[in-house]
Amino acid sequence: MSINYSNLEQYADELANLAKKAGRNLRTVSAEKKAQVLRLVAERIRAQKSEILAENAKDCEAFKDKLSEAMLDRLTLNDARIEAMAKGAEEIAEFTDPLGRVLESRELPNGIQISRVSVPMGAIFFIYESRPNVTIDGACLCFKSGNAVVLRGGKESLNSSKFLAGIFRKALADCGLDQDAVQLVENPDHALVTLLLQKNEALDLVIPRGGERLIRAVVEQSKIPVIKHFNGICHVYVDKSADIEMAREILINAKTQRTGVCNAMECVLFDRALNKASVLSLVKTLQDKGVEFFGDAEAQKEIPNVQDIGDDANYHHEYLALKASVKFVDGVKGACDHIEKYSSRHTEAIVAKDTAALDYFAANVDSSSVMLNASTRFADGGQYGLGAEVGISTDKIHARGPMGVESLCTYKWILRGTGQIRQ
Amino acid sequence: MSINYSNLEQYADELANLAKKAGRNLRTVSAEKKAQVLRLVAERIRAQKSEILAENAKDCEAFKDKLSEAMLDRLTLNDARIEAMAKGAEEIAEFTDPLGRVLESRELPNGIQISRVSVPMGAIFFIYESRPNVTIDGACLCFKSGNAVVLRGGKESLNSSKFLAGIFRKALADCGLDQDAVQLVENPDHALVTLLLQKNEALDLVIPRGGERLIRAVVEQSKIPVIKHFNGICHVYVDKSADIEMAREILINAKTQRTGVCNAMECVLFDRALNKASVLSLVKTLQDKGVEFFGDAEAQKEIPNVQDIGDDANYHHEYLALKASVKFVDGVKGACDHIEKYSSRHTEAIVAKDTAALDYFAANVDSSSVMLNASTRFADGGQYGLGAEVGISTDKIHARGPMGVESLCTYKWILRGTGQIRQ
Repeated sequence: MSINYSNLEQYADELANLAKKAGRNLRTVSAEKKAQVLRLVAERIRAQKSEILAENAKDCEAFKDKLSEAMLDRLTLNDARIEAMAKGAEEIAEFTDPLGRVLESRELPNGIQISRVSVPMGAIFFIYESRPNVTIDGACLCFKSGNAVVLRGGKESLNSSKFLAGIFRKALADCGLDQDAVQLVENPDHALVTLLLQKNEALDLVIPRGGERLIRAVVEQSKIPVIKHFNGICHVYVDKSADIEMAREILINAKTQRTGVCNAMECVLFDRALNKASVLSLVKTLQDKGVEFFGDAEAQKEIPNVQDIGDDANYHHEYLALKASVKFVDGVKGACDHIEKYSSRHTEAIVAKDTAALDYFAANVDSSSVMLNASTRFADGGQYGLGAEVGISTDKIHARGPMGVESLCTYKWILRGTGQIRQ
Repeated sequence: MSINYSNLEQYADELANLAKKAGRNLRTVSAEKKAQVLRLVAERIRAQKSEILAENAKDCEAFKDKLSEAMLDRLTLNDARIEAMAKGAEEIAEFTDPLGRVLESRELPNGIQISRVSVPMGAIFFIYESRPNVTIDGACLCFKSGNAVVLRGGKESLNSSKFLAGIFRKALADCGLDQDAVQLVENPDHALVTLLLQKNEALDLVIPRGGERLIRAVVEQSKIPVIKHFNGICHVYVDKSADIEMAREILINAKTQRTGVCNAMECVLFDRALNKASVLSLVKTLQDKGVEFFGDAEAQKEIPNVQDIGDDANYHHEYLALKASVKFVDGVKGACDHIEKYSSRHTEAIVAKDTAALDYFAANVDSSSVMLNASTRFADGGQYGLGAEVGISTDKIHARGPMGVESLCTYKWILRGTGQIRQ
C-alpha cells in the first residue's frame, strides 16, 4: 500500500475531531440510556451471529498462513466467544454507573458548597492486538464511562472488528445518540496511529494493550497521556517461617494454573535459612508438574535439574510458559532487594508465618499488588470486585493495578455559592 | 558553554539513579521523622537568613540587566519572603501525613482481606522558573509525600537555589536520612533536562510549572508521565436571570483582585436576553476600574469603548492584565458552546438565579472547576481546604484542578490471605 500522508492526516484529524464532538455529546447521557444501548448491542450480537462468523472467517482465511497457531486461535470467533461478548455487554449494562459519584463534599468557611464529582474523560484512544472481541469490550467500557472511543485493533481482525463496531454504531444511532461515540480505525497503516498520538487537543487518554514493543512505541510517540499495561514478572518469596504446604499450593497455583498470563509467577525466591528438604520438596512438586527451572550457580548447586540462567539480567525474563527462575536470598530483606531490581512492579507474593516478615514485605515491595499468603493469580479486576476490567495498569499515576471503569473517569470540582468573592 | 553530551548523560544518569535509590529509602520513613526534618529546615532557613540573602544578591546582580522588572522581583528574596519559606515548611510539617491512608478495604468472598493504601510515587522531577522559594516549596511537598525530588529551577536563581537545597540536604543528613531525597540540577544546560525526561525507569512523574512554552516542550520530550499546569482562560457568564449586583461583585473580583494569576477572568459572556442597561452598567463598573475590553462586531456595536478583538481566535487570549474579552451569547447553551471552543478548561463561572441554567452549566462545562454564583478566584488548593498546593492541574488524568500533596501519592493493593489460591 502506498502511504499518502496528507490523506492520512486528514483521516486522523477527522477521527479525533469526531471523537471529541461525540465525547461532548455523551457528557449528559443518562445511565438508563447507556444501559439501553448496551442491551441492544448484546441483542444484536446474538441476532447477527452468522454474519459475524462470516466476517471472521474472511480474517482467518486471509491470515491462516501468516499467524502462529496461538495467534490464529485468538483471532478466531465461535459460538461461545460470540455469546461471551453479548453477555459481557449485558453485564456492563447492569454495573453501577461510574459517573456523577460525589467523591468528596463539604461546606467551606465562606458558605460555598464544594464537591468533587466523577465525570467522563472525554475521548479515549484504545489500541489492541488481534482478538476481535476486544472491539466490543473496549467500546462497552468506554461508553459505560461516558467516553467516546477510537478503537484501533490488529489489522488481522479488521473485517470482524468493522462488523462489530458497526453493530455498536447502529445501536447508538437507533437510540438517538451520536454514533461517533464508537469509531474504528479502518486503515491499518501504522503512520495513522502515530498521527493520532499527536492529537492531544482532542483525545484525552491512550490505552495500549498488547506486547511490550507496541506499548513502548506508543509511549515514545504519544503526546496524549498513556496508561500502560506491561506484563508481569511476578515473584513468590518463601520465607523460613512459611507453612510449607501453604507454599506448595500457592506455588502450584501461581505458576501452573495458567502460564500465559501477566499475574503468573515467573520467579521463586527461597530464604537461605529455609530448611533444605523443604526447598527440594517444593521444587520437586513443580518439576513433577512439568516446570523447568533456571538459576544461578548457587541454585544449580543446591537444587537438582536447574538449568543455567546465564547472565543475572535474565532474572528479568518473563517466560509465560511452564518455566521459572529460582534464586536464594537472605530473608525478607534479600527478597525485597531482588524484587526491587528485577520485578516489573506488577504483583509479588510472600509465604510466611512471621508477622514481622509479612509487614516488612508489605511496606517495602513497590508493586501494584502485594500478596501476603495468597497466590499472585488473584491480581485481577474481577477478583478484586471492580466489575469489568479495563486492564492491569503497571503505571503509578491515575490508576495502578487492576482498573475498573471508574478509572476511565476523571472528576471536576463544583462550587455552589451565593455570590461569594475572594478577599 | 561547550556541551559535553557524554558527561551530561553521566550526570543525568547519576541524578536519576540517586533519586530512585533515595525514593526507595524514603518508602518507610515515619510521619514523625519527616515532620522533624521539615521543622529543622524551617529553623535553619531562619538561622541562615543572611547567607541566603548574600547568595540571592549574587543572582540578582548577575541578571539585573537581563530580566524584566517583574522577573527580577520574582527572583529577589527579602526578609518577608524568607520567613514565608520557613513558615511554609513548618505548615507542611503539621499537615496530616498523606501516606498509609486506607482508600478502600473489604473482605473478598474467599476470605482475603483486600485494601488499597496510599504510598509514595517514588521520584519526582520538578521543573520551575525563576522564583527561588519554589526550591523549598517543591522539596517540602515531595518529601512530605515520601518522594525523592530532582529540582530544576531557572538558571537565574542557581546560587539561591543551591544554597536552599543545601540546607534541606544537610537537614536530611543530620536526621539520619538519605540526602539525595532532595537533589538540585546544578548545570543549567537544557540538554540535561531533555536527557532527564528520558529516564522513565527511574523517575515516576514530571511536574513542569511555568510558561506554556516550557510545558509544551516538556510534554513533547518526556517519556515520563507529566502533570501539566497550563494557565487559565477563565470565563464568567452572566445569565438573563442573574442578580446584577452579585454579577458586579463577582466580575470585579474575578477580573481585578489579581490580574496575573491563572484563575482570573479573561472573558465575560453576556446573555443576549439580559437587559441592556444592566450590561452597560456592569461594563462601566469594570471600565471605571481600568479594565479594557476587546470584542467582536456585536460587542463593539452594543457597548461603548470596546476595542476590536480581530480574529475570533483571539477569544483564546490570556491577558493576565486589566484587560478582558467580551462576547454576547444565546443563553446558557450559547455560553457553554463558546466555553467549549475557547476555554483552557481551568475554571468557569456562571451568575444566575435560574436553577435550570445553573444545572445545565454545571453538567455541560468540562473544566476542572465550575463556579455557580461565585468568583473564579476561588480555584485554589488553599481555598478548597487541600493544605499546601502543588499547583493547579489542567490535565484530566491523575489529578485535576487544585492539587494537594495527596496527588503526589499513588496507591498499592495489599491482599492478606491465609493460603488462598485461585480456582
